[in-house]
Amino acid sequence: MVKAAVFEKANEPLKIQNFPKPTVEDNAVLVKILSAGICGTDIHVWSGKVPWVKTPVILGHESVGVVEELGKSITHDSMGKPLSEGDRIYWAIGITCGRCYYCLRNSPTRCLNRKAIGLSTPCDKPPHLFGGFAEQIYLPAGTYIFKVPEGLPTLAISAVGCAGPTMIAGLENVEINLNDVVAVQGSGPIGMFGLILSMERGALETIMIGGPAKRLEFAKKVGATHVIDINEVRTPEERIKMVKELTGGYGPDVVMDCTGIPNAIQEAVSIVRDGGRILEVGAYADYGPVPVNPYFITNRQIKIVGSYSKVARHEFEFLRFMGGKWRKYPFREMVTHKFPLERINEAFEVQRSLGGMKVVVLPYGEPPT
Amino acid sequence: MVKAAVFEKANEPLKIQNFPKPTVEDNAVLVKILSAGICGTDIHVWSGKVPWVKTPVILGHESVGVVEELGKSITHDSMGKPLSEGDRIYWAIGITCGRCYYCLRNSPTRCLNRKAIGLSTPCDKPPHLFGGFAEQIYLPAGTYIFKVPEGLPTLAISAVGCAGPTMIAGLENVEINLNDVVAVQGSGPIGMFGLILSMERGALETIMIGGPAKRLEFAKKVGATHVIDINEVRTPEERIKMVKELTGGYGPDVVMDCTGIPNAIQEAVSIVRDGGRILEVGAYADYGPVPVNPYFITNRQIKIVGSYSKVARHEFEFLRFMGGKWRKYPFREMVTHKFPLERINEAFEVQRSLGGMKVVVLPYGEPPT
Amino acid sequence: MVKAAVFEKANEPLKIQNFPKPTVEDNAVLVKILSAGICGTDIHVWSGKVPWVKTPVILGHESVGVVEELGKSITHDSMGKPLSEGDRIYWAIGITCGRCYYCLRNSPTRCLNRKAIGLSTPCDKPPHLFGGFAEQIYLPAGTYIFKVPEGLPTLAISAVGCAGPTMIAGLENVEINLNDVVAVQGSGPIGMFGLILSMERGALETIMIGGPAKRLEFAKKVGATHVIDINEVRTPEERIKMVKELTGGYGPDVVMDCTGIPNAIQEAVSIVRDGGRILEVGAYADYGPVPVNPYFITNRQIKIVGSYSKVARHEFEFLRFMGGKWRKYPFREMVTHKFPLERINEAFEVQRSLGGMKVVVLPYGEPPT
Amino acid sequence: MVKAAVFEKANEPLKIQNFPKPTVEDNAVLVKILSAGICGTDIHVWSGKVPWVKTPVILGHESVGVVEELGKSITHDSMGKPLSEGDRIYWAIGITCGRCYYCLRNSPTRCLNRKAIGLSTPCDKPPHLFGGFAEQIYLPAGTYIFKVPEGLPTLAISAVGCAGPTMIAGLENVEINLNDVVAVQGSGPIGMFGLILSMERGALETIMIGGPAKRLEFAKKVGATHVIDINEVRTPEERIKMVKELTGGYGPDVVMDCTGIPNAIQEAVSIVRDGGRILEVGAYADYGPVPVNPYFITNRQIKIVGSYSKVARHEFEFLRFMGGKWRKYPFREMVTHKFPLERINEAFEVQRSLGGMKVVVLPYGEPPT
Ligand SMILES: [Zn+2]
Ligand SMILES: [Zn+2]
Ligand SMILES: [Zn+2]
Ligand SMILES: [Zn+2]
Ligand SMILES: [Zn+2]
Ligand SMILES: [Zn+2]
Ligand SMILES: [Zn+2]
Ligand SMILES: [Zn+2]
Repeated sequence: MVKAAVFEKANEPLKIQNFPKPTVEDNAVLVKILSAGICGTDIHVWSGKVPWVKTPVILGHESVGVVEELGKSITHDSMGKPLSEGDRIYWAIGITCGRCYYCLRNSPTRCLNRKAIGLSTPCDKPPHLFGGFAEQIYLPAGTYIFKVPEGLPTLAISAVGCAGPTMIAGLENVEINLNDVVAVQGSGPIGMFGLILSMERGALETIMIGGPAKRLEFAKKVGATHVIDINEVRTPEERIKMVKELTGGYGPDVVMDCTGIPNAIQEAVSIVRDGGRILEVGAYADYGPVPVNPYFITNRQIKIVGSYSKVARHEFEFLRFMGGKWRKYPFREMVTHKFPLERINEAFEVQRSLGGMKVVVLPYGEPPT
Repeated sequence: MVKAAVFEKANEPLKIQNFPKPTVEDNAVLVKILSAGICGTDIHVWSGKVPWVKTPVILGHESVGVVEELGKSITHDSMGKPLSEGDRIYWAIGITCGRCYYCLRNSPTRCLNRKAIGLSTPCDKPPHLFGGFAEQIYLPAGTYIFKVPEGLPTLAISAVGCAGPTMIAGLENVEINLNDVVAVQGSGPIGMFGLILSMERGALETIMIGGPAKRLEFAKKVGATHVIDINEVRTPEERIKMVKELTGGYGPDVVMDCTGIPNAIQEAVSIVRDGGRILEVGAYADYGPVPVNPYFITNRQIKIVGSYSKVARHEFEFLRFMGGKWRKYPFREMVTHKFPLERINEAFEVQRSLGGMKVVVLPYGEPPT
Repeated sequence: MVKAAVFEKANEPLKIQNFPKPTVEDNAVLVKILSAGICGTDIHVWSGKVPWVKTPVILGHESVGVVEELGKSITHDSMGKPLSEGDRIYWAIGITCGRCYYCLRNSPTRCLNRKAIGLSTPCDKPPHLFGGFAEQIYLPAGTYIFKVPEGLPTLAISAVGCAGPTMIAGLENVEINLNDVVAVQGSGPIGMFGLILSMERGALETIMIGGPAKRLEFAKKVGATHVIDINEVRTPEERIKMVKELTGGYGPDVVMDCTGIPNAIQEAVSIVRDGGRILEVGAYADYGPVPVNPYFITNRQIKIVGSYSKVARHEFEFLRFMGGKWRKYPFREMVTHKFPLERINEAFEVQRSLGGMKVVVLPYGEPPT
Repeated sequence: MVKAAVFEKANEPLKIQNFPKPTVEDNAVLVKILSAGICGTDIHVWSGKVPWVKTPVILGHESVGVVEELGKSITHDSMGKPLSEGDRIYWAIGITCGRCYYCLRNSPTRCLNRKAIGLSTPCDKPPHLFGGFAEQIYLPAGTYIFKVPEGLPTLAISAVGCAGPTMIAGLENVEINLNDVVAVQGSGPIGMFGLILSMERGALETIMIGGPAKRLEFAKKVGATHVIDINEVRTPEERIKMVKELTGGYGPDVVMDCTGIPNAIQEAVSIVRDGGRILEVGAYADYGPVPVNPYFITNRQIKIVGSYSKVARHEFEFLRFMGGKWRKYPFREMVTHKFPLERINEAFEVQRSLGGMKVVVLPYGEPPT
């Protein structure tokens, strides 16, 4: 039997249930979970803010595991590297159809037939195990599977396993130009990866606006030029003034809203320089509209660009990126809390309270790498 | 003496005044106005909605004229074509400095030292004549001057003299891709030029949303696939439904808001397809904020892109475009009302009431070409 | 039994053979060929210039047909439109894997596992019928199938069935900007479609360089601003001079080499304006190197951009384009020669001799639409 | 009197001459030269390979100096910072007209009226001092002048004063995408800056192909993933093989040819991956054509992109970049040889022999900062 945490009803505890070990089809893979990160989206789902998720469901979409059993037809990963049982792997959470209107019009994140592991497949039918918060996950035929480069720490991947590819996709929608000044609103994993990517893409200066203090220390450690603690600089007016002062009165070229707080977009509009760009990547939950002045958009020539999720290509690039850069940034330190599967409800509570940076579930204890 | 219409106070009549004929400096040009279009911005200024305009000022920034006197040093137009007195010319209304922060960061429309003929230079000091609503205009050193191609009708240029380059600049900010479905909100000159440019850039289908009926007839005549009359389809809900039906349920790839009405942006967000783009080019006056839901921006992956004004390069391209395409589209028919300079206040009233498509002032009567 | 033309050996006649009518698998489709165009590539293959093609093979990759039998699982086309026997369809010739290095790095035309109907699948094994020069073609599972819009003539599609999507893909690699001056080298189907697309993307002027005279007449008919007949203006030097004169001495912004003749690229480099772009879309056969001066590339800041083939997305857009524009351009007239399947060798000879613009094979006579 | 080195005839020694100290016009600036780097272009000119340079001329276009005398009207630098005598400054070497065909078509590096300090203005007329190889330089009205940020070493700027902005412009023509693998041909200043910029723009791996060993050590020190010594790996075939092995058999996404050697482009074509991009930024001297196969360009879908020089905007961004990054990379160490003005012919010999990385002329000895 395989243990898994099942989400049934909003705001109620997840239940640990036992499922039969699945028979592995020819093109599927059964994977032992080494580490499963809790994403902000999981909390949104748990809080009942993502109505399209069908229950009962095993959540968990930023995981790393070890191949337990390979379907007969699978001998290589999605990139053509030989794959064996025991290999450490990471996988794309989404499969897009490639042939709907959105796929054919080059908007694959809008795919009408998109399936998302750990989110969109209920667990009431065999093989049940479609989410990361479990001892094992069943990756159906067609899943993009990538062998993890040797040495790359499992927890480094988990720390940004969803934030990473999401921001890589985001920066295809709002490009960073050389020498850009970039402000990031929100110092969670997605904001932190946005900060790092900005620097990697040649930002001249970066400003991290967030909290609490520990997160901002981390931001400075990875290289933020300036940090603004929202617990100290408490009003939008003060923060706008401070950002303007830090940027010669102009404002940053790019503002990334990674907060999930609706009002942040107003602050972003006030902060960004004339002719600047706002990446709206955080508004995954619906908290209703906020006032925005179209006059500013036209007259100050502002771009507001939404970016949602990612496709396999971005997860592939994410793993390449991590393979090359994990020694440069202490991603692993972003994991502030670790829980066994049995204590997943505590883990969710910690993540919800923003008490930590990244909370992970480790069904089999500390991963060897 | 030279007659000109002077704007002194919001919502009061312009006054026809006499100014001394200027002495022409070496690099300046004195021009007899053939035709001066009234732009929506002139109406906004007149209504007191553009607080940065200093009075007294001669308005008028979409004009065509004939060289009355060339400064000694000027022998050619900005493109190197020989220039003589009597030549018909068009000119860029703005001069950017090329060396402020915005110019050097490639955002020249945000130039900190931008001067706009017919808008930003008061007429209380000699040579006074810095606007188009006059018998003559004085183009200072540095103005970009372009000889008008033979045959190209003066009134065709006036019809879209400001809308044209504004939309050419706008479409650098929101590109039209081949086969895009484009909806245009607003059937004034800027919307009409947006419609035409969309078709010129390869739109597969276009939807003009506006009114009154005469304008929509014109839209159909130039090639709009569909038109929606806001006087018949009166609620946003009905219009959204209709646009969705016309686009296979998806919505257009691009929506251009050319209305100047703040709520139009909400309708644009509802209309545009997932992953689509909104060009916000109409909000030149400040009517305050409207509610926008960040959740839609992220989750439906929408881009909202402001575009403001243009620089000389766009006016140059506009004139090239008109030189090549004026036979293809009946631009001249967009001029629905013509007034002598003395009756400029009537002209402004007609333009304000949206009674016509384009109102022009003709200080010397019907232009020969 | 089903008749098909089999290519076995370079420069020898194709052989008409009989194959058993295939049993249609659940996700496959059997199609009656209405029209199959002969592409330049077919001639290259036939001439032995494309060494990777394995024989015996049924060539033919720009076809239109009627559904003869649908696999049990297929009820809709790739866009979700209901599909029945008797429906007219067009299909993508390539299937890319979506998961090799090139696919994941966003270069799907380089897919390492690409399969091309009518080119890369030999006919020695059942179901044999993998090419268009036959009475019927077997479209395997995964083929992108698109229902042809009502009214769109079968022969219009055949005329540019390969050239069209190839150029749509090409113009993603070299963008046409508004008001560009575009010269096209080569007046075959690919050059002609390049000409048309340039105009559709807002080119201000176009220059078609090719021959013979009939093709140039057609170019003028669809809207070319200038044509240069290589049979009259015989040397590159004369042609370069002429193009410079037609473009104010500067040269075109974009040159499209659609000739397949290696030296054309040298002429393109001489013709294109400083800072201009060359789309190299014709060099499908290997005729060896030609001299190019790197000094010109750096000092005159020239871009030379290769574009190869297309993917399903481009074929989808091609059919959308044709659905919207077939009344605007007389594509059907590009079909200058029609042959029954039995006379395919004559058809190949005509196409090789460039005696016509487009030669098609009609296994069942003139198509009804 | 002011000493300057005058170039009169190809391959003959420069002559140190005395010129009268100029009277400074209202909008001009007289500058004491702190350091003047010798660029590859200076050597090309000296060798008679750049025929458009008119003599006698004072060469030198990558200099840093101290304001000796400000024209009356100048109080601020081009960015609006207050400027006084004694301030350290850097300046753009080119002034573009902003109104020729190329400027208006957004190709300002092709400006028909471009003036280049230290290259295009002969010294036979007052105020004579238009080049950097002199005790003082006269910057005419309109020159873009930028105050050097405090702390930024003069020699760091000189090391890459021309290479830096040239490559910043180059990377606008060939973008580096996140995770790109980049190979650089040529380990001189331009190649080295290309290497650094690639890393700054998010390259995953970099390969420096050059020599001698000292330069490659420097490349490794700044972060090159791999280096290939052309003195050890002597044939193109070996180098191609090695690069392919280092890149999983595919080849790099981007190859930058910074060699100035015509054959390098052939090697670039062989090295680059299918669908890859070649930045041709080194071919400043005309050594005639080399064989290139158009078949590779089409069939392997390669882009070859020339980039020439830069405009003021790039020099501005260069100085911003240096202000932010000079502590991160040891630019100053690239200066391997320093000479007083009197020994400039020795300096030219060293630079020509490629005996050093960067040779600078210091008219007043070691600069204080
Ligand atoms: Zn899809
Ligand atoms: Zn997530
Ligand atoms: Zn400016
Ligand atoms: Zn206007
Ligand atoms: Zn592939
Ligand atoms: Zn073909
Ligand atoms: Zn110029
Ligand atoms: Zn140089």
